[in-house]
Amino acid sequence: MKIVALTGGVGGAKLVVGLQRIVAPEDLTVIVNTGDDFTHLGLRICPDIDTLLYTLSGRASRERGWGREDESWSFMAAMRELGGEDWFQLGDRDLALHILRTVRLRDGDALTAITGDLARAFGIRSTILPMSDQAIETTLDTDVGFLSFQRYFVALRAEPRVRRIEFSGASAAKPALGVIEAIKEADAVLIAPSNPYLSIDPIISVPGLRDALLASSAARVAVSPLVGGTSVKGPTAKLMQEFECPVVNYTIASHYGDLLQGLLVHEGDNIPEGLETASCDTLMRSESDSERVADAALDLARRIMAHRS
Amino acid sequence: MKIVALTGGVGGAKLVVGLQRIVAPEDLTVIVNTGDDFTHLGLRICPDIDTLLYTLSGRASRERGWGREDESWSFMAAMRELGGEDWFQLGDRDLALHILRTVRLRDGDALTAITGDLARAFGIRSTILPMSDQAIETTLDTDVGFLSFQRYFVALRAEPRVRRIEFSGASAAKPALGVIEAIKEADAVLIAPSNPYLSIDPIISVPGLRDALLASSAARVAVSPLVGGTSVKGPTAKLMQEFECPVVNYTIASHYGDLLQGLLVHEGDNIPEGLETASCDTLMRSESDSERVADAALDLARRIMAHRS
Repeated sequence: MKIVALTGGVGGAKLVVGLQRIVAPEDLTVIVNTGDDFTHLGLRICPDIDTLLYTLSGRASRERGWGREDESWSFMAAMRELGGEDWFQLGDRDLALHILRTVRLRDGDALTAITGDLARAFGIRSTILPMSDQAIETTLDTDVGFLSFQRYFVALRAEPRVRRIEFSGASAAKPALGVIEAIKEADAVLIAPSNPYLSIDPIISVPGLRDALLASSAARVAVSPLVGGTSVKGPTAKLMQEFECPVVNYTIASHYGDLLQGLLVHEGDNIPEGLETASCDTLMRSESDSERVADAALDLARRIMAHRS
Repeated sequence: MKIVALTGGVGGAKLVVGLQRIVAPEDLTVIVNTGDDFTHLGLRICPDIDTLLYTLSGRASRERGWGREDESWSFMAAMRELGGEDWFQLGDRDLALHILRTVRLRDGDALTAITGDLARAFGIRSTILPMSDQAIETTLDTDVGFLSFQRYFVALRAEPRVRRIEFSGASAAKPALGVIEAIKEADAVLIAPSNPYLSIDPIISVPGLRDALLASSAARVAVSPLVGGTSVKGPTAKLMQEFECPVVNYTIASHYGDLLQGLLVHEGDNIPEGLETASCDTLMRSESDSERVADAALDLARRIMAHRS
């Protein structure tokens, strides 16, 4: 059973960790949001790809929720000493990833090839693909003006009220090499419990990607990012309110619309109509939690496939 | 008494530390070799300027002989993990300097302005100037072919036999802003006990710099890099042999020629004729050693000035 997962950073990576435990590496392709990518201090930083690399290789910090576990912070201390920018935390080990990627991008290598090499160096055997090799920048129209993603999310802690979200550069972008092929060959496409507006929509904004999903024979299942009527982490619920949508699973289902054939929701949460659903405890605090949620999502996909035949 | 010091890295920085202890900061200008500068992993690295910044601000590692004292090496460990280049050691704190400088150079700021800001951030009150804002690359014609300075010095540990040294880009370069003015206003110009061929010659190769030195009314004194018939550190003596010059102070004096009016040599070493000389223990293991050598060099300069009037 060939699986494609669409994912943002932390929350999505937790589902992918579960998939990694139950799907053969050659059968798992992860398509990662790059709308959060930005250039900081001359370095190209891809927060969601890095989170996947660290999480899938067992290097992610559990306590911090981002970055590497065995991290040190001498670089940041020296930056502060020199009066440099310090609003974005860059760990000493983390820097190696950014510096290597920046050098290779400047040499003309594609983000896809670089990401594949980094994953291999970390011993990850499933395929991690950026959604596109072209830069797409998630930009937010807010009550304090237009903001880049990192300015909104890190510097302003997602506090501004969002009116609209744009994916600058999307119209000129193409899916990364391997993305469309993986979707075509997939038996199931799983949308991770990432932020639909900020992590999944940028992926779907890449020209050709939505059509490939709709044309695919794969069962398409999302794991709802809502648990007990709110989002576990990050501004999903806050954005739903700002967009004047009720913070319920129906909003998630209708947001994805015909992209979705199934939705896995948290046990006890309300269940939308008009698509296949299943429920389980979707909170992922450990790798066995992740495996449980991945299992339930694949079961739902299998049920959708069985109904067809 | 206004002092200009021409210097390379470690050995020269030790003399400048001594000068810093006895010369008012507004009277001390340090002109630093940038022939060793190179771009590594996308970062612009200026080894001699960095050594001056770390040494004059009390941050240099005494044991290691290069880099910062309170350094950590997580970045290098992560680079090795990722299969990245690791022949040039970059400390976690050291990286902040290179990254800030690289960003500002790319933004169009001059190395002179950047160096001044870094020195200020480190609390250094004397003036540190790169010899030029234009790139000049020390290149060595050796028995294993043409080598860049860092390839020769770090990767190949100065082992290849050198036939000739070139300063690529020198003819198109200009002295950095402030260099000629400082030389014009100087009462004494001190050539630090750095490698004459690899650290001082690149400075003198900057068009206009030699003429400014010759036209200056300053007393011009070098501290010999030889101690007991060899060089304390680095390939000075080895290069002298490869150039078929005796490893004696006469070779140093004749190499600098009419640039020099005085030479401070190590006590007991042979004393060349044809210029003013003095001797003292020129080995600098502590800051008080540095102060003793700086004192002796300034005394010799004062004697030269007195003879004139």
